Amino acid sequence: MKIAIAQINPIIGDLPGNAAKILCAAQQAAAKGARLLLTPELSLCGYPPRDLLLNPSFIEAMRISLQQLVKDLPPNLAVLVGTVEENLHAQNNGGKPLFNSMALLDNGIKQIFHKRLLPTYDVFDERRYFEPGLQANYFTLDNIDVGVTICEDLWNDEEFWGKRTYTNNPIADLSILGVDFIVNLSASPYSVNKQQFRETMLQHSAARFKQPIIYANQVGGNDDLIFDGRSFALNRQGELVCRARGFETDLVVVEFDEVQRDLLESSVVAEYESEDEEIWHALVLGVRDYAQKCRFSQVVLGLSGGIDSSFVAAIATAALGKENVFGVLMPSPYSSEHSITDALALGESLGIKTTTLPIGELMQGYDNTLADLFAGTQFGLAEENIQSRIRGNLLMAIANKFGYLLLSTGNKSEMAVGYCTLYGDMNGGLAVIADVPKTRVYSICHWLNHHSCRDAINRVSTFYAINRVSPIPENVLIKAPSAELKPGQVDQDSLPPYEILDDILQRLIHNHQSAAQIVDADHDAQIVDRVIQMVARAEFKRRQAPPGLKITDRAFGTGWRMPIASNWFSVKNAYQTKTIPILHQ
Amino acid sequence: MKIAIAQINPIIGDLPGNAAKILCAAQQAAAKGARLLLTPELSLCGYPPRDLLLNPSFIEAMRISLQQLVKDLPPNLAVLVGTVEENLHAQNNGGKPLFNSMALLDNGIKQIFHKRLLPTYDVFDERRYFEPGLQANYFTLDNIDVGVTICEDLWNDEEFWGKRTYTNNPIADLSILGVDFIVNLSASPYSVNKQQFRETMLQHSAARFKQPIIYANQVGGNDDLIFDGRSFALNRQGELVCRARGFETDLVVVEFDEVQRDLLESSVVAEYESEDEEIWHALVLGVRDYAQKCRFSQVVLGLSGGIDSSFVAAIATAALGKENVFGVLMPSPYSSEHSITDALALGESLGIKTTTLPIGELMQGYDNTLADLFAGTQFGLAEENIQSRIRGNLLMAIANKFGYLLLSTGNKSEMAVGYCTLYGDMNGGLAVIADVPKTRVYSICHWLNHHSCRDAINRVSTFYAINRVSPIPENVLIKAPSAELKPGQVDQDSLPPYEILDDILQRLIHNHQSAAQIVDADHDAQIVDRVIQMVARAEFKRRQAPPGLKITDRAFGTGWRMPIASNWFSVKNAYQTKTIPILHQ
Repeated sequence: MKIAIAQINPIIGDLPGNAAKILCAAQQAAAKGARLLLTPELSLCGYPPRDLLLNPSFIEAMRISLQQLVKDLPPNLAVLVGTVEENLHAQNNGGKPLFNSMALLDNGIKQIFHKRLLPTYDVFDERRYFEPGLQANYFTLDNIDVGVTICEDLWNDEEFWGKRTYTNNPIADLSILGVDFIVNLSASPYSVNKQQFRETMLQHSAARFKQPIIYANQVGGNDDLIFDGRSFALNRQGELVCRARGFETDLVVVEFDEVQRDLLESSVVAEYESEDEEIWHALVLGVRDYAQKCRFSQVVLGLSGGIDSSFVAAIATAALGKENVFGVLMPSPYSSEHSITDALALGESLGIKTTTLPIGELMQGYDNTLADLFAGTQFGLAEENIQSRIRGNLLMAIANKFGYLLLSTGNKSEMAVGYCTLYGDMNGGLAVIADVPKTRVYSICHWLNHHSCRDAINRVSTFYAINRVSPIPENVLIKAPSAELKPGQVDQDSLPPYEILDDILQRLIHNHQSAAQIVDADHDAQIVDRVIQMVARAEFKRRQAPPGLKITDRAFGTGWRMPIASNWFSVKNAYQTKTIPILHQ
Repeated sequence: MKIAIAQINPIIGDLPGNAAKILCAAQQAAAKGARLLLTPELSLCGYPPRDLLLNPSFIEAMRISLQQLVKDLPPNLAVLVGTVEENLHAQNNGGKPLFNSMALLDNGIKQIFHKRLLPTYDVFDERRYFEPGLQANYFTLDNIDVGVTICEDLWNDEEFWGKRTYTNNPIADLSILGVDFIVNLSASPYSVNKQQFRETMLQHSAARFKQPIIYANQVGGNDDLIFDGRSFALNRQGELVCRARGFETDLVVVEFDEVQRDLLESSVVAEYESEDEEIWHALVLGVRDYAQKCRFSQVVLGLSGGIDSSFVAAIATAALGKENVFGVLMPSPYSSEHSITDALALGESLGIKTTTLPIGELMQGYDNTLADLFAGTQFGLAEENIQSRIRGNLLMAIANKFGYLLLSTGNKSEMAVGYCTLYGDMNGGLAVIADVPKTRVYSICHWLNHHSCRDAINRVSTFYAINRVSPIPENVLIKAPSAELKPGQVDQDSLPPYEILDDILQRLIHNHQSAAQIVDADHDAQIVDRVIQMVARAEFKRRQAPPGLKITDRAFGTGWRMPIASNWFSVKNAYQTKTIPILHQ
């Protein structure tokens, strides 16, 4: 029996469009002789639908869409479609009103399966909407028993993790039932190295339970989340027999041999050369999909001659084509000569249009307007921010005038410590590299300038490969980073060196380490304390940041839920040094 | 036995500060002869601590704080303190690593109780952090059996609701055990009329189960959430025997009569005269606490002479004192004469400082800077937004320069349909009236101008009562609302009348009604469709809005989780008119 995986790229809530994508995949799968087609989790509405699920007319529309799809599907092809199902017992027994479900369509709606393990952490809010399914899910097709799991259902192998996250392990239940293979319908967002983790984890489970596993993942960018696809299949020994493309739609077919009772070897797309390459493809997809799904064809961004804006311009060019990227240089009297020459060199190497709008007159205008009020005060942060906000205002004016999407260019290190101006350089519809630490920005830019030609086959890099150019000008890579908001300023006047800062941030944000633990890892205690305070104080800025493409396991954004008016970071040191105040008053 | 309720106002994460507040309340309670003191849910860390709960050093610090508090408390007073407790079985059995708990302190930590029903909807994310407790919670003190419930534990009376939200009903379990009375330790955020709902609901439960209930609620503003206090007690018949103050800290004592086995009549603070009065007090508290907890003593805002900024200025003046509010008039060539005179009249009636910064020169500066790029285009939205963003930039410059908190002044109707400028009038650290519909803004302002002198006793209104002024100038209340971003512009050029708009928005946002249902309620189909599209398209603006004080059951903010790049609102009409496209390709 041939099983096809439809690695589709749905648009959230676009029920007719997503149904059409499933139907198109079904026709291709039927033409390839498949008997069963897998689609990702919630494929009918796209993942994550978020609070659209609270809307009764949305639920009703999904029901109608599914019924229509049943009628349209080719005969003799069973299709698993991701949808929601009402929890009919909620009224009397309590519980959430919906299940996160898969419908088995095969000349009608044959069976409905409910997701059992509901992730409620990081960016996931499934307990907000769904009740967990209670039963092991499987169906029989042409005498083959197929176990059905939905995404998180396979993320609780206590032997692999060394602990349980949920009480049940659905794969263990299916193994006891003795199914022939297990399908996992997923919408698993990308983060660095996650595919390697997924494959290792499911290889462990497949081998442990002697169960072939076919893993179908969604692809595409939905707001801050990038789904990387890379659907794959493992045979009974846990060996990889199939892998679909990364960061692109795909339709792959694997075959279950009814004699061997195992999956046969199929096509395996190669892994990426490096993390840098992987992240690059993720970001390109994230920009392309956010723009297209929000119906923008063109983007605008400020070009400072620095590495962040250069990197974002390169991503945007790969995502949307050079004719759709507009770079704006906005030099001030504090701008260095190289900030202009480097930005123009970048524009030339990418082949994008640029324009130059000096901001000196506007700076003078603000100075004049505020002269009386600010009389007797020193040039400081307020004046620095005015420059950034003039630029932000000009970029938004251009975006509004011509219908462009404004891309913001701040990196994660800046966003973490608040080294960025709210309503200034933070302006934009999408924060392209808000989850990319500064040191990683450098390493990807180096990779981009030197990457091999094997990428010529991959359309996202075709432009650079064909033109054999180094998109990022060399000077951008070697000069000291600077915001250039006052004469002679460099980032390291205000911040520790980025290698140190990024390591501290990694420990603090990703590893939840305490100040003491970070200091133990050979960091200066004063610097650590200062960074912690800066991160805490920047919370109000992050709350107002545009959606940022998530590429790590802990991004600022929908999965980062911190209080603003909090005193924890002011008092925490007292607990680590055991100097908490005595309370007697 | 006397039971005291400590209606405290914690700062999130300020463990020593919150412990000191509990200790101070304990000393007062002991002085009043109380044997038991109740504090709100998670009183040690403040509610909601959000992702601070993911930080192991935060959990450890809570443990240390609790142990310290035990030592400091007065003898012979038992205290229920809200804290978290580790789920020791999570490793082996699965489940979240923490419980949302109450510790009974009485010469040591005597017992720990776990919250059983974990709200995971709207602004609540408790399943993200906590595992539900499985047992009915009670303790015995001086031969009196006290049932312990935590907030949501009492929000599942299926007889009252007509349905179950959770499988268990903790009050039913306690009733079977036969406790003498039940305490409910809450952190229940304010929304309009919620107190009435709480009292009605618990009166039903108290009478149904013949259980006296003592309800202790947190007070204070924490980011977008305002906790209204108004702790109360009900006797065995469900009659109100005590109510604490609204929107202020309080310490009240109720007495359990050991012969009657019931609570005795105690002090009952009167209800508010109107919803308008109630919302006024909520907003004043929200502004005061956000400013103070973020360590701002002074605020700045733009004064347009319109009703929204006038209203916010009045709230800020009541919250922080007239000497701490700075109003900035920023007239453009399109500003009407009355926009200046009305704003100055408001400044005078409130007694706040104002300054006037004309923006004509800066508008000219942007026109000059963009002249080549915009050549041949018409004056439009881009130019309108530039004006708003100049004002936003000036306000932020003032905020940055003098360390003021900038308050933004957009109302909920505007935020819903996107009739506001991102990085312009949306700028601010706090969006004071972002959850107040425009029609409600008018009604509260009318109330404010005419409210009775009984409020003189209430400090938040003392200023107006003593001065016997009508804070909002009459002309502000009667003129047509206008953004004044082009000559002769009024809001109703772009929007339906606010009475109609607000009713449509209420049905759409709060009642989850479909377009068809809204049209059935006598609204014009074209207007309904336009409003729905506007609401959908403004999602990207709301995502970048400052925290807005929540006063309704469905606010934009932490409890509003909508996708941006979604196509649902473009396709939904097809489902209502049964015209969904056939998928055959």
